[in-house]
Amino acid sequence: MRTLYCGQVNETNIDQQVELVGWVNKRRDLGGVIFLDLRDREGLVQVVYDPDLPEVFELASSLRNEFCVKVTGKVRPRPASQVNKDMATGGVEILGLELEILSKSAPLPLTLDDHQTNSEEQRLKYRYLDLRRPEMAEKIKFRARITSAVRRFLDDNGFLDIETPILTAATPEGARDYLVPSRTHKGNFFALPQSPQLFKQLLMMSGMDRYYQIVKCFRDEDLRADRQPEFTQIDIETSFMSADQVMAVTEEMIRGIFQDLLNVDLGDFPRMTYAEAMRRYGSDKPDLRNPLELIDVADLVKDVEFKVFSGPANDEKGRVAVICVPGGAALSRKNIDEYGKFVGIYGAKGLAWMKVNEAAKGLEGVQSPIAKFLNEEVVNALLERTQAKDGDIILFGADKGTIVSEAMGALRLKLGEDLELTSDEWKPLWVVDFPMFEELPNGGLTPLHHPFTAPTGLTPEQLEADPANAISDAYDMVLNGCELGGGSVRIYDQAMQAAIFRILGISDEEAQEKFGFLLEALQFGAPPHAGLAFGLDRLVMLMTGASSIRDVMAFPKTLTAACPLTNAPGQANPAALADLGLEVEAPAAEEEQA
Amino acid sequence: MRTLYCGQVNETNIDQQVELVGWVNKRRDLGGVIFLDLRDREGLVQVVYDPDLPEVFELASSLRNEFCVKVTGKVRPRPASQVNKDMATGGVEILGLELEILSKSAPLPLTLDDHQTNSEEQRLKYRYLDLRRPEMAEKIKFRARITSAVRRFLDDNGFLDIETPILTAATPEGARDYLVPSRTHKGNFFALPQSPQLFKQLLMMSGMDRYYQIVKCFRDEDLRADRQPEFTQIDIETSFMSADQVMAVTEEMIRGIFQDLLNVDLGDFPRMTYAEAMRRYGSDKPDLRNPLELIDVADLVKDVEFKVFSGPANDEKGRVAVICVPGGAALSRKNIDEYGKFVGIYGAKGLAWMKVNEAAKGLEGVQSPIAKFLNEEVVNALLERTQAKDGDIILFGADKGTIVSEAMGALRLKLGEDLELTSDEWKPLWVVDFPMFEELPNGGLTPLHHPFTAPTGLTPEQLEADPANAISDAYDMVLNGCELGGGSVRIYDQAMQAAIFRILGISDEEAQEKFGFLLEALQFGAPPHAGLAFGLDRLVMLMTGASSIRDVMAFPKTLTAACPLTNAPGQANPAALADLGLEVEAPAAEEEQA
Repeated sequence: MRTLYCGQVNETNIDQQVELVGWVNKRRDLGGVIFLDLRDREGLVQVVYDPDLPEVFELASSLRNEFCVKVTGKVRPRPASQVNKDMATGGVEILGLELEILSKSAPLPLTLDDHQTNSEEQRLKYRYLDLRRPEMAEKIKFRARITSAVRRFLDDNGFLDIETPILTAATPEGARDYLVPSRTHKGNFFALPQSPQLFKQLLMMSGMDRYYQIVKCFRDEDLRADRQPEFTQIDIETSFMSADQVMAVTEEMIRGIFQDLLNVDLGDFPRMTYAEAMRRYGSDKPDLRNPLELIDVADLVKDVEFKVFSGPANDEKGRVAVICVPGGAALSRKNIDEYGKFVGIYGAKGLAWMKVNEAAKGLEGVQSPIAKFLNEEVVNALLERTQAKDGDIILFGADKGTIVSEAMGALRLKLGEDLELTSDEWKPLWVVDFPMFEELPNGGLTPLHHPFTAPTGLTPEQLEADPANAISDAYDMVLNGCELGGGSVRIYDQAMQAAIFRILGISDEEAQEKFGFLLEALQFGAPPHAGLAFGLDRLVMLMTGASSIRDVMAFPKTLTAACPLTNAPGQANPAALADLGLEVEAPAAEEEQA
Repeated sequence: MRTLYCGQVNETNIDQQVELVGWVNKRRDLGGVIFLDLRDREGLVQVVYDPDLPEVFELASSLRNEFCVKVTGKVRPRPASQVNKDMATGGVEILGLELEILSKSAPLPLTLDDHQTNSEEQRLKYRYLDLRRPEMAEKIKFRARITSAVRRFLDDNGFLDIETPILTAATPEGARDYLVPSRTHKGNFFALPQSPQLFKQLLMMSGMDRYYQIVKCFRDEDLRADRQPEFTQIDIETSFMSADQVMAVTEEMIRGIFQDLLNVDLGDFPRMTYAEAMRRYGSDKPDLRNPLELIDVADLVKDVEFKVFSGPANDEKGRVAVICVPGGAALSRKNIDEYGKFVGIYGAKGLAWMKVNEAAKGLEGVQSPIAKFLNEEVVNALLERTQAKDGDIILFGADKGTIVSEAMGALRLKLGEDLELTSDEWKPLWVVDFPMFEELPNGGLTPLHHPFTAPTGLTPEQLEADPANAISDAYDMVLNGCELGGGSVRIYDQAMQAAIFRILGISDEEAQEKFGFLLEALQFGAPPHAGLAFGLDRLVMLMTGASSIRDVMAFPKTLTAACPLTNAPGQANPAALADLGLEVEAPAAEEEQA
């Protein structure tokens, strides 16, 4: 129906007659002439209707915003005074010769030009209108370009796109499964997969060798700002590849996508152990754009009289770490108090500080409520270790190690943002050598990744002898403080898998019931295998600079997991429920419907 | 870990040292030498271990079927007497120098070489082993090649891959929805989509212009041999394209895939109206490889005394049609009786027949239990119209039109198969000009496609005046008697959509409740749009020659919609059910579990 897209018209089309279809983005009547901004998926172009063609002009006069129209016209250069350099098509305009209204529009229930005034609820209810905004359309188009590039890379590298079931068995993983009642097996339920983890491992056992899938996964958890009940994974699994090889090929993929789609060279990704990341950044997904680091000082404050410091400094599980903020001595008391409250969110009991006025003067050159507890030697050692300069501030965290890391890690990010220390670059890295397990409040162990992750260089016996200190062959790809993807070498040895289940306190019976098929499959020549999964939504979000995951999904749900557009979820047909052998205990009140 | 795949080793690798990984497909000890067939995703290669290397030889002696191993060896030509021309790697073998057992295998619970002895249940329970059979692996690999080719074509033609929700609202369509209870909106349910129909239409209204998705769809129906609860669609929608343009671009896609993947030129697809397809083939998805056709003869038997013929021949809704089977006079009475029973399945009351012994002799030259009811003139007219030759048989169907078409259409296919008349070609076509509606037993109307299909060349008023005779702008792509895909031009006019709902007896209130958001969306400058969806599973099945849809899915369900591998569906955690506000009326008996 069209010769080309609106957004593609340019100087090379001058004097050509073109046919365009799209939406009236804006109509202006100026000096007896009608100017239309015509919009389609690829952009905007200006169309001019003169009164010379009275019939067409009259029709053009009747146009309102968001009418869908077909325009036939001639491309001409804009008068020099009207050239719009901010617009891709700003050097040209179309002299309208014909006009057809394909579809009229009632006044919109929300504005497209200043969407700030639209509520999230309204934007989702009229998602098809919200997506007409070029900034939204761009994100959806960019997402398609990313998936296309990912697929080409993986196809070209011998990965097979293989579909795994959506209706599957419940998993015993932490987060909740969505359940789907079965009609043919009444009283029983399918679950929607949180990931195709077991299926992709089974595909390796089937000899498929290299698998990928861009696949929907589901998690019924209380929604936080950046979670959605259904999300999309780039899911990858390979046989006969080491962790290094998996990291190399996926790094190449991500690097290629950034190069091709953003013209950004990410370079080689540095690697950092989990231990180093926690030590220097208090996080297993450090944002390396931020120059601040945590500096351990427990050894320097072991003997001070200030128990807040010396306590954790002498405790095996304690930690004392500081952040030295350049120029931070300028922070007001109020600022510092606010940061103190901020670290409180993470369980820290306070935030000790030391302003460095004249470093050369040692104890005398610093200003701090805790100066009285410190002596000359300690202060000098602190100044030396932090390399603090005059005008800096040193902020202290002292508590259990986990609290210090989390609180000071979060404070580091906040300071980086508040003080505009965080640079505007792309900073990828691999975090490796994760612990196999982390401790639960009840003293038990839980896998840091998932229970199919292989430990590095241990026999099942060695692992069981000291599980708390075992390192796993897992790796996370981190970009600008976000975890883009994570994976691991998997267990392919039945004895090792059984040992893990024992360590996790899963009884043989429970293991058989839940994972019997996996344990059985490990008996029949299972190959060594490893894999990784990327969060596609987050990747798109980062690459498009979107502020919410909802902005990179065509039809997201609200924070309460509802869809204002289709009114899902809704009441079920009573006959259907009877067929499923189900009774709704608490019939939904009308107002509860989304 | 490998230099190349087993199946890739060939004469160009001679004298090279290679590393291979894979599974022991077979071990033979012959003349003091060990021969292994080593298998991976890409095929088999022969490895030879000599006793010259005693340690390696001893290890090789311990190998059993399906051990996963790494082989290092040197490629050499096979002795001329041992060249195996049936094997891609049959000209070479690997002289094994090193051997590493990566993973041992217990004896398999099913055989891989003669899978006929394995039950379907066993094959699904040990799917990961069943998929090791090269013939199964080929199908899964081929499927990945098809999806890759489809995506490349659509990406290159400006289609955007856009994901639509899996957790959505129930549809009022015929087949049953899978329901998903909501936890955050207790007592309410999501439904899994039977297709992304409404979302793709909304995407057109959002201006996305060209959309595609290879997407899982769900239908909770009683499973027939060739249905699965979850299946995959190649889903396409475009704005500003006519039916012809949609057919052209999708035909090009399918033609390209057959050319690239099977080296088959499908040529231009002929088009046939629904009316012609029903008349000549008794089916809206005619298998054109079969030369038999239905021939209407009502006008010839209108006046015969045989009421079985003259009744339907004089009834507006009746039909009398014959199939003339070349050489069919050789059919035994028993054969014919069986065909009579066969058409009975479709509601036909019997199968009249007439053997043509000597066509030139007219009534005297034919043999038929109903000859006595026919006169010379009628017989001659029948012989002329059918162009029957001596030795043919003419089979009669006379009943309501729908019964005759269905029964004789099915008989045509059966005869084609039984008598080996159906050729071994690829015969695609488009079926077009479908009726908008078909009649329900209660006299009401139901859409032949779906209620969003546009009628051809009618205003809403004209459509409502005579809906039963309205033709829709719908099209089906048919290949070898299978519907590969179907689509239509959609309604983009609110008045037309409302008229359709009225015709279907959907009240304004019900329409508002169920489709309010679509009707509302049509107000805001909806573009003309059209689309199509292909059944990917069926396409793969046809292209790979698979006999069941289950053979082209990695992890299919059984006919009762269960998964013997993961034991899904299973009992739900009572706490989870309580959280959902659900009570299971009929707790699943143990033996009911899949």
